Amino acid sequence: MRSAYHEQLDQFDNQLVHMTKLVNDAMIQATNAILDADLVLAESVIAGDEEIDAVAHDLEEQALELVALQAPVATELRVLLSGLRISASLERMGDLAVHVAKAARLRYPASAVPAELRGVITEMGEVAERIVQRTGDVLAERDLLAAGELGIIDDEMDSLHRQLFRAVLSDDWKYGVEAAIDVTLVSRYYERFADHAVTIGKRVIHIVTGEPYSTAGVE
Amino acid sequence: MRSAYHEQLDQFDNQLVHMTKLVNDAMIQATNAILDADLVLAESVIAGDEEIDAVAHDLEEQALELVALQAPVATELRVLLSGLRISASLERMGDLAVHVAKAARLRYPASAVPAELRGVITEMGEVAERIVQRTGDVLAERDLLAAGELGIIDDEMDSLHRQLFRAVLSDDWKYGVEAAIDVTLVSRYYERFADHAVTIGKRVIHIVTGEPYSTAGVE
Repeated sequence: MRSAYHEQLDQFDNQLVHMTKLVNDAMIQATNAILDADLVLAESVIAGDEEIDAVAHDLEEQALELVALQAPVATELRVLLSGLRISASLERMGDLAVHVAKAARLRYPASAVPAELRGVITEMGEVAERIVQRTGDVLAERDLLAAGELGIIDDEMDSLHRQLFRAVLSDDWKYGVEAAIDVTLVSRYYERFADHAVTIGKRVIHIVTGEPYSTAGVE
Repeated sequence: MRSAYHEQLDQFDNQLVHMTKLVNDAMIQATNAILDADLVLAESVIAGDEEIDAVAHDLEEQALELVALQAPVATELRVLLSGLRISASLERMGDLAVHVAKAARLRYPASAVPAELRGVITEMGEVAERIVQRTGDVLAERDLLAAGELGIIDDEMDSLHRQLFRAVLSDDWKYGVEAAIDVTLVSRYYERFADHAVTIGKRVIHIVTGEPYSTAGVE
Protein backbone atom coordinates (compact mmCIF):
# COMPACT_ATOMS: atom_id res chain seq x y z
CA MET A 1 0.00 0.00 0.00
CA ARG A 2 2.76 2.44 0.88
CA SER A 3 4.52 1.58 -2.35
CA ALA A 4 1.45 2.27 -4.50
CA TYR A 5 1.18 5.52 -2.58
CA HIS A 6 4.72 6.59 -3.41
CA GLU A 7 4.08 5.68 -7.01
CA GLN A 8 1.11 8.02 -6.90
CA LEU A 9 3.30 10.78 -5.52
CA ASP A 10 5.83 10.22 -8.32
CA GLN A 11 3.07 10.27 -10.87
CA PHE A 12 1.89 13.58 -9.45
CA ASP A 13 5.36 15.04 -10.12
CA ASN A 14 5.46 13.49 -13.60
CA GLN A 15 2.21 15.20 -14.48
CA LEU A 16 3.62 18.56 -13.45
CA VAL A 17 6.55 17.95 -15.80
CA HIS A 18 4.08 16.92 -18.50
CA MET A 19 2.24 20.22 -17.96
CA THR A 20 5.46 22.17 -18.63
CA LYS A 21 5.64 20.41 -22.01
CA LEU A 22 2.04 21.21 -22.89
CA VAL A 23 2.56 24.83 -21.86
CA ASN A 24 5.80 25.01 -23.85
CA ASP A 25 4.09 23.68 -26.98
CA ALA A 26 1.25 26.15 -26.50
CA MET A 27 3.58 29.13 -26.21
CA ILE A 28 5.74 28.06 -29.17
CA GLN A 29 2.62 27.77 -31.31
CA ALA A 30 1.23 31.06 -30.00
CA THR A 31 4.50 32.82 -30.87
CA ASN A 32 4.41 31.42 -34.40
CA ALA A 33 0.74 32.33 -34.71
CA ILE A 34 1.37 35.95 -33.80
CA LEU A 35 4.53 36.29 -35.88
CA ASP A 36 2.97 34.75 -38.99
CA ALA A 37 -0.64 35.89 -38.47
CA ASP A 38 -1.56 32.19 -38.60
CA LEU A 39 -5.22 31.84 -37.65
CA VAL A 40 -5.31 28.03 -37.69
CA LEU A 41 -2.41 27.86 -35.28
CA ALA A 42 -3.98 30.51 -33.05
CA GLU A 43 -7.25 28.56 -32.87
CA SER A 44 -5.35 25.39 -32.08
CA VAL A 45 -3.66 27.05 -29.07
CA ILE A 46 -6.98 28.41 -27.84
CA ALA A 47 -8.72 25.03 -28.15
CA GLY A 48 -5.75 23.14 -26.70
CA ASP A 49 -5.91 25.01 -23.41
CA GLU A 50 -8.67 22.68 -22.28
CA GLU A 51 -6.17 19.85 -22.03
CA ILE A 52 -3.91 21.88 -19.73
CA ASP A 53 -6.88 22.85 -17.56
CA ALA A 54 -7.95 19.20 -17.42
CA VAL A 55 -4.53 18.07 -16.16
CA ALA A 56 -4.63 20.79 -13.48
CA HIS A 57 -8.07 19.65 -12.44
CA ASP A 58 -6.96 16.01 -12.31
CA LEU A 59 -4.01 16.95 -10.12
CA GLU A 60 -6.33 18.67 -7.69
CA GLU A 61 -8.54 15.58 -7.45
CA GLN A 62 -5.49 13.32 -7.03
CA ALA A 63 -4.12 15.52 -4.26
CA LEU A 64 -7.42 15.38 -2.43
CA GLU A 65 -7.54 11.62 -2.78
CA LEU A 66 -3.96 11.15 -1.65
CA VAL A 67 -4.45 13.33 1.40
CA ALA A 68 -7.78 11.77 2.31
CA LEU A 69 -6.73 8.13 1.89
CA GLN A 70 -3.08 8.20 2.88
CA ALA A 71 -2.84 10.89 5.55
CA PRO A 72 0.63 11.95 4.40
CA VAL A 73 3.14 13.26 6.92
CA ALA A 74 3.87 17.00 7.14
CA THR A 75 6.69 17.06 4.56
CA GLU A 76 4.73 15.11 1.96
CA LEU A 77 1.75 17.32 2.62
CA ARG A 78 3.82 20.41 1.99
CA VAL A 79 5.02 18.89 -1.28
CA LEU A 80 1.46 18.11 -2.37
CA LEU A 81 0.11 21.55 -1.50
CA SER A 82 3.07 23.20 -3.22
CA GLY A 83 2.43 20.93 -6.19
CA LEU A 84 -1.10 22.30 -6.42
CA ARG A 85 0.23 25.84 -6.42
CA ILE A 86 2.75 24.91 -9.11
CA SER A 87 -0.03 23.36 -11.17
CA ALA A 88 -2.03 26.60 -10.80
CA SER A 89 0.99 28.58 -12.06
CA LEU A 90 1.38 26.28 -15.06
CA GLU A 91 -2.33 26.58 -15.78
CA ARG A 92 -1.96 30.36 -15.84
CA MET A 93 1.06 30.09 -18.13
CA GLY A 94 -1.18 28.17 -20.52
CA ASP A 95 -3.75 30.98 -20.26
CA LEU A 96 -1.04 33.48 -21.20
CA ALA A 97 -0.22 31.47 -24.34
CA VAL A 98 -3.94 31.67 -25.13
CA HIS A 99 -3.83 35.44 -24.68
CA VAL A 100 -0.99 35.68 -27.20
CA ALA A 101 -2.96 33.49 -29.61
CA LYS A 102 -6.06 35.65 -29.13
CA ALA A 103 -4.05 38.77 -29.92
CA ALA A 104 -3.02 37.06 -33.17
CA ARG A 105 -6.64 36.14 -33.94
CA LEU A 106 -7.94 39.63 -33.15
CA ARG A 107 -5.81 41.24 -35.87
CA TYR A 108 -6.02 38.45 -38.44
CA PRO A 109 -5.46 38.64 -41.42
CA ALA A 110 -3.21 41.55 -40.45
CA SER A 111 -0.25 40.88 -38.17
CA ALA A 112 -0.35 42.15 -34.59
CA VAL A 113 3.42 42.60 -34.67
CA PRO A 114 4.89 45.47 -36.73
CA ALA A 115 7.90 44.40 -38.82
CA GLU A 116 10.24 46.45 -36.64
CA LEU A 117 9.32 44.40 -33.54
CA ARG A 118 9.44 40.91 -35.04
CA GLY A 119 12.96 40.48 -33.67
CA VAL A 120 11.99 41.30 -30.08
CA ILE A 121 8.89 39.10 -30.08
CA THR A 122 10.87 36.25 -31.65
CA GLU A 123 13.43 36.55 -28.87
CA MET A 124 10.70 36.69 -26.23
CA GLY A 125 9.34 33.45 -27.66
CA GLU A 126 12.78 31.88 -27.43
CA VAL A 127 13.29 33.02 -23.86
CA ALA A 128 9.82 31.70 -22.97
CA GLU A 129 10.74 28.34 -24.45
CA ARG A 130 14.02 28.24 -22.57
CA ILE A 131 12.51 29.20 -19.21
CA VAL A 132 9.68 26.68 -19.34
CA GLN A 133 12.01 23.87 -20.44
CA ARG A 134 14.28 24.71 -17.51
CA THR A 135 11.22 24.74 -15.25
CA GLY A 136 10.56 21.19 -16.41
CA ASP A 137 14.12 20.22 -15.39
CA VAL A 138 13.66 21.91 -12.02
CA LEU A 139 10.49 19.92 -11.40
CA ALA A 140 11.84 16.63 -12.72
CA GLU A 141 15.10 16.72 -10.78
CA ARG A 142 14.39 19.18 -7.94
CA ASP A 143 17.50 20.90 -9.25
CA LEU A 144 18.12 23.97 -7.08
CA LEU A 145 20.86 25.33 -9.32
CA ALA A 146 18.47 25.25 -12.26
CA ALA A 147 15.81 26.86 -10.04
CA GLY A 148 18.15 29.77 -9.42
CA GLU A 149 18.86 30.06 -13.16
CA LEU A 150 15.20 30.77 -13.82
CA GLY A 151 15.69 34.23 -12.31
CA ILE A 152 18.55 34.90 -14.73
CA ILE A 153 16.48 33.87 -17.74
CA ASP A 154 13.67 36.03 -16.39
CA ASP A 155 16.05 39.03 -16.37
CA GLU A 156 16.52 38.51 -20.11
CA MET A 157 12.76 38.61 -20.57
CA ASP A 158 12.46 41.79 -18.52
CA SER A 159 15.17 43.37 -20.60
CA LEU A 160 13.32 42.49 -23.83
CA HIS A 161 10.11 43.88 -22.32
CA ARG A 162 11.88 47.18 -21.61
CA GLN A 163 13.38 47.20 -25.10
CA LEU A 164 9.92 46.83 -26.62
CA PHE A 165 8.60 49.63 -24.40
CA ARG A 166 11.36 51.95 -25.59
CA ALA A 167 10.51 51.21 -29.23
CA VAL A 168 6.82 51.82 -28.70
CA LEU A 169 7.40 55.07 -26.84
CA SER A 170 10.10 56.46 -29.11
CA ASP A 171 9.39 59.43 -31.36
CA ASP A 172 10.03 57.17 -34.35
CA TRP A 173 7.02 54.97 -33.57
CA LYS A 174 4.89 55.08 -36.69
CA TYR A 175 2.33 52.31 -36.19
CA GLY A 176 -0.22 54.22 -34.10
CA VAL A 177 -1.85 53.66 -30.73
CA GLU A 178 -3.63 50.40 -31.49
CA ALA A 179 -0.47 48.58 -32.54
CA ALA A 180 1.35 50.05 -29.54
CA ILE A 181 -1.26 48.66 -27.15
CA ASP A 182 -1.31 45.29 -28.91
CA VAL A 183 2.42 44.71 -28.64
CA THR A 184 2.62 46.10 -25.12
CA LEU A 185 -0.02 43.66 -23.92
CA VAL A 186 1.60 40.79 -25.80
CA SER A 187 4.97 41.69 -24.33
CA ARG A 188 3.41 41.72 -20.89
CA TYR A 189 2.02 38.20 -21.44
CA TYR A 190 5.53 36.93 -22.14
CA GLU A 191 6.91 38.81 -19.15
CA ARG A 192 4.33 37.31 -16.82
CA PHE A 193 4.83 33.88 -18.35
CA ALA A 194 8.46 34.10 -17.21
CA ASP A 195 7.44 35.46 -13.80
CA HIS A 196 5.31 32.38 -13.18
CA ALA A 197 8.30 30.16 -14.02
CA VAL A 198 10.33 32.03 -11.40
CA THR A 199 7.56 31.52 -8.85
CA ILE A 200 7.59 27.78 -9.57
CA GLY A 201 11.35 27.75 -9.04
CA LYS A 202 10.89 29.47 -5.68
CA ARG A 203 8.26 26.93 -4.67
CA VAL A 204 10.62 24.07 -5.50
CA ILE A 205 13.39 25.73 -3.47
CA HIS A 206 10.87 26.04 -0.65
CA ILE A 207 9.98 22.35 -0.90
CA VAL A 208 13.61 21.24 -0.84
CA THR A 209 15.15 23.65 1.67
CA GLY A 210 12.17 24.97 3.64
CA GLU A 211 13.35 28.49 2.76
CA PRO A 212 10.45 30.91 2.56
CA TYR A 213 9.85 32.50 -0.82
CA SER A 214 8.25 35.75 -1.78
CA THR A 215 5.58 36.14 -4.43
CA ALA A 216 6.35 39.85 -4.82
CA GLY A 217 6.06 41.03 -8.37
CA VAL A 218 3.96 38.13 -9.57
CA GLU A 219 0.24 38.35 -9.96
CA MET B 1 -10.20 18.68 20.59
CA ARG B 2 -12.76 18.51 17.78
CA SER B 3 -14.28 21.76 18.98
CA ALA B 4 -10.93 23.59 18.94
CA TYR B 5 -10.49 22.17 15.47
CA HIS B 6 -13.78 23.58 14.22
CA GLU B 7 -12.88 26.90 15.77
CA GLN B 8 -9.69 26.78 13.73
CA LEU B 9 -11.69 26.10 10.56
CA ASP B 10 -13.96 29.07 11.34
CA GLN B 11 -10.96 31.24 11.98
CA PHE B 12 -9.56 30.21 8.60
CA ASP B 13 -12.73 31.50 6.92
CA ASN B 14 -12.65 34.69 8.99
CA GLN B 15 -9.16 35.42 7.78
CA LEU B 16 -10.27 35.08 4.16
CA VAL B 17 -12.98 37.64 4.86
CA HIS B 18 -10.37 39.83 6.56
CA MET B 19 -8.23 39.57 3.41
CA THR B 20 -11.10 40.91 1.27
CA LYS B 21 -11.13 43.99 3.54
CA LEU B 22 -7.38 44.52 3.22
CA VAL B 23 -7.58 44.10 -0.55
CA ASN B 24 -10.55 46.48 -0.73
CA ASP B 25 -8.68 49.15 1.24
CA ALA B 26 -5.65 48.69 -0.99
CA MET B 27 -7.63 49.13 -4.20
CA ILE B 28 -9.57 52.14 -2.87
CA GLN B 29 -6.29 53.82 -1.95
CA ALA B 30 -4.68 52.84 -5.26
CA THR B 31 -7.62 54.35 -7.16
CA ASN B 32 -7.32 57.59 -5.21
CA ALA B 33 -3.55 57.58 -5.71
CA ILE B 34 -3.85 57.30 -9.47
CA LEU B 35 -6.72 59.78 -9.79
CA ASP B 36 -5.03 62.42 -7.62
CA ALA B 37 -1.38 61.61 -8.47
CA ASP B 38 -0.89 61.09 -4.72
CA LEU B 39 2.59 59.66 -4.17
CA VAL B 40 2.24 59.14 -0.42
CA LEU B 41 -0.91 57.10 -0.90
CA ALA B 42 0.71 55.10 -3.72
CA GLU B 43 3.70 54.24 -1.52
CA SER B 44 1.37 53.23 1.29
CA VAL B 45 -0.44 50.74 -0.98
CA ILE B 46 2.88 49.31 -2.18
CA ALA B 47 4.25 48.91 1.34
CA GLY B 48 0.94 47.60 2.68
CA ASP B 49 0.95 44.61 0.35
CA GLU B 50 3.30 42.82 2.74
CA GLU B 51 0.47 42.49 5.24
CA ILE B 52 -1.77 40.80 2.65
CA ASP B 53 1.04 38.44 1.64
CA ALA B 54 1.66 37.64 5.31
CA VAL B 55 -1.98 36.67 5.89
CA ALA B 56 -1.86 34.42 2.80
CA HIS B 57 1.31 32.81 4.08
CA ASP B 58 -0.24 32.29 7.54
CA LEU B 59 -3.26 30.63 5.99
CA GLU B 60 -1.02 28.22 4.12
CA GLU B 61 0.77 27.26 7.35
CA GLN B 62 -2.54 26.88 9.19
CA ALA B 63 -3.94 24.65 6.47
CA LEU B 64 -0.86 22.44 6.63
CA GLU B 65 -1.15 22.22 10.40
CA LEU B 66 -4.86 21.46 10.32
CA VAL B 67 -4.45 18.73 7.73
CA ALA B 68 -1.43 17.20 9.45
CA LEU B 69 -2.83 17.20 12.97
CA GLN B 70 -6.53 16.66 12.39
CA ALA B 71 -6.75 14.47 9.29
CA PRO B 72 -9.93 16.18 8.10
CA VAL B 73 -12.53 14.22 6.17
CA ALA B 74 -12.83 14.64 2.40
CA THR B 75 -15.35 17.52 2.47
CA GLU B 76 -13.37 19.54 5.00
CA LEU B 77 -10.23 18.87 3.00
CA ARG B 78 -11.85 20.21 -0.14
CA VAL B 79 -12.89 23.31 1.78
CA LEU B 80 -9.35 23.84 3.06
CA LEU B 81 -7.71 23.36 -0.33
CA SER B 82 -10.28 25.64 -1.95
CA GLY B 83 -9.58 28.14 0.83
CA LEU B 84 -5.91 28.14 -0.15
CA ARG B 85 -6.81 28.82 -3.77
CA ILE B 86 -9.13 31.64 -2.65
CA SER B 87 -6.35 33.08 -0.55
CA ALA B 88 -4.04 32.96 -3.59
CA SER B 89 -6.65 34.86 -5.64
CA LEU B 90 -6.99 37.51 -2.93
CA GLU B 91 -3.22 37.80 -2.74
CA ARG B 92 -3.14 38.47 -6.49
CA MET B 93 -5.92 41.04 -6.15
CA GLY B 94 -3.66 42.81 -3.68
CA ASP B 95 -0.83 42.66 -6.23
CA LEU B 96 -3.11 44.28 -8.80
CA ALA B 97 -3.82 47.17 -6.40
CA VAL B 98 -0.03 47.50 -6.11
CA HIS B 99 0.25 47.64 -9.92
CA VAL B 100 -2.27 50.50 -10.03
CA ALA B 101 -0.31 52.29 -7.29
CA LYS B 102 2.95 51.76 -9.18
CA ALA B 103 1.40 53.23 -12.34
CA ALA B 104 0.53 56.31 -10.24
CA ARG B 105 4.08 56.47 -8.85
CA LEU B 106 5.68 56.06 -12.27
CA ARG B 107 4.04 59.21 -13.65
CA TYR B 108 4.21 61.31 -10.46
CA PRO B 109 4.02 64.35 -10.25
CA ALA B 110 2.02 64.09 -13.47
CA SER B 111 -1.22 62.11 -13.46
CA ALA B 112 -1.36 58.76 -15.28
CA VAL B 113 -5.04 59.39 -16.06
CA PRO B 114 -5.93 62.02 -18.69
CA ALA B 115 -8.81 64.28 -17.60
CA GLU B 116 -11.12 62.72 -20.17
CA LEU B 117 -10.78 59.26 -18.58
CA ARG B 118 -11.13 60.23 -14.92
CA GLY B 119 -14.79 59.27 -15.06
CA VAL B 120 -14.15 55.73 -16.34
CA ILE B 121 -11.33 55.04 -13.88
CA THR B 122 -13.44 56.41 -11.02
CA GLU B 123 -16.23 54.04 -12.01
CA MET B 124 -13.80 51.13 -12.30
CA GLY B 125 -12.67 51.89 -8.75
CA GLU B 126 -16.27 51.87 -7.58
CA VAL B 127 -17.03 48.58 -9.32
CA ALA B 128 -13.86 47.08 -7.84
CA GLU B 129 -15.00 48.17 -4.38
CA ARG B 130 -18.44 46.70 -4.91
CA ILE B 131 -17.21 43.37 -6.22
CA VAL B 132 -14.68 42.77 -3.46
CA GLN B 133 -17.19 43.73 -0.76
CA ARG B 134 -19.65 41.26 -2.25
CA THR B 135 -16.87 38.67 -2.37
CA GLY B 136 -16.50 39.21 1.38
CA ASP B 137 -20.24 38.50 1.83
CA VAL B 138 -19.95 35.38 -0.33
CA LEU B 139 -17.11 34.10 1.84
CA ALA B 140 -18.69 35.07 5.15
CA GLU B 141 -22.10 33.58 4.44
CA ARG B 142 -21.44 31.05 1.63
CA ASP B 143 -24.16 32.99 -0.14
CA LEU B 144 -24.65 31.38 -3.57
CA LEU B 145 -26.96 34.13 -4.79
CA ALA B 146 -24.29 36.69 -4.03
CA ALA B 147 -21.71 34.43 -5.71
CA GLY B 148 -23.77 34.54 -8.90
CA GLU B 149 -24.02 38.33 -8.63
CA LEU B 150 -20.26 38.62 -8.90
CA GLY B 151 -20.50 37.72 -12.58
CA ILE B 152 -22.99 40.54 -13.14
CA ILE B 153 -20.74 43.09 -11.43
CA ASP B 154 -17.86 41.73 -13.51
CA ASP B 155 -19.87 42.44 -16.69
CA GLU B 156 -19.99 46.10 -15.61
CA MET B 157 -16.22 46.08 -15.28
CA ASP B 158 -15.79 44.51 -18.72
CA SER B 159 -18.06 47.13 -20.20
CA LEU B 160 -15.98 49.94 -18.64
CA HIS B 161 -12.82 48.26 -19.93
CA ARG B 162 -14.24 48.27 -23.47
CA GLN B 163 -15.37 51.89 -23.07
CA LEU B 164 -11.83 52.88 -22.14
CA PHE B 165 -10.43 50.97 -25.11
CA ARG B 166 -12.75 52.79 -27.48
CA ALA B 167 -11.64 56.16 -26.07
CA VAL B 168 -7.96 55.29 -26.41
CA LEU B 169 -8.36 54.00 -29.96
CA SER B 170 -10.65 56.77 -31.23
CA ASP B 171 -9.36 59.34 -33.70
CA ASP B 172 -9.93 62.01 -31.05
CA TRP B 173 -7.30 60.56 -28.72
CA LYS B 174 -4.85 63.39 -28.13
CA TYR B 175 -2.69 62.17 -25.25
CA GLY B 176 -0.18 60.11 -27.20
CA VAL B 177 1.02 56.52 -27.04
CA GLU B 178 2.48 56.55 -23.52
CA ALA B 179 -0.75 57.71 -21.89
CA ALA B 180 -2.69 55.19 -24.01
CA ILE B 181 -0.52 52.34 -22.76
CA ASP B 182 -0.68 53.56 -19.16
CA VAL B 183 -4.44 53.66 -19.01
CA THR B 184 -4.87 50.42 -20.95
CA LEU B 185 -2.67 48.55 -18.48
CA VAL B 186 -4.39 50.19 -15.51
CA SER B 187 -7.77 49.29 -16.97
CA ARG B 188 -6.60 45.72 -17.39
CA TYR B 189 -5.57 45.58 -13.71
CA TYR B 190 -9.12 46.52 -12.70
CA GLU B 191 -10.57 44.03 -15.15
CA ARG B 192 -8.43 41.19 -13.79
CA PHE B 193 -9.18 42.26 -10.21
CA ALA B 194 -12.86 41.63 -10.97
CA ASP B 195 -12.05 38.34 -12.76
CA HIS B 196 -10.37 37.03 -9.62
CA ALA B 197 -13.49 37.89 -7.59
CA VAL B 198 -15.56 35.85 -10.05
CA THR B 199 -13.15 32.92 -9.69
CA ILE B 200 -13.54 33.09 -5.90
CA GLY B 201 -17.30 33.03 -6.32
CA LYS B 202 -17.02 29.91 -8.48
CA ARG B 203 -14.81 28.24 -5.89
CA VAL B 204 -17.39 28.93 -3.19
CA ILE B 205 -20.16 27.52 -5.40
CA HIS B 206 -17.92 24.47 -5.91
CA ILE B 207 -17.44 24.08 -2.17
CA VAL B 208 -21.17 24.30 -1.42
CA THR B 209 -22.66 22.38 -4.33
CA GLY B 210 -19.81 20.25 -5.66
CA GLU B 211 -20.45 21.79 -9.10
CA PRO B 212 -17.27 22.00 -11.16
CA TYR B 213 -16.16 25.46 -12.11
CA SER B 214 -14.09 26.69 -15.01
CA THR B 215 -11.13 29.02 -14.75
CA ALA B 216 -11.44 30.01 -18.41
CA GLY B 217 -10.67 33.65 -18.99
CA VAL B 218 -8.78 34.16 -15.75
CA GLU B 219 -5.04 34.10 -15.55
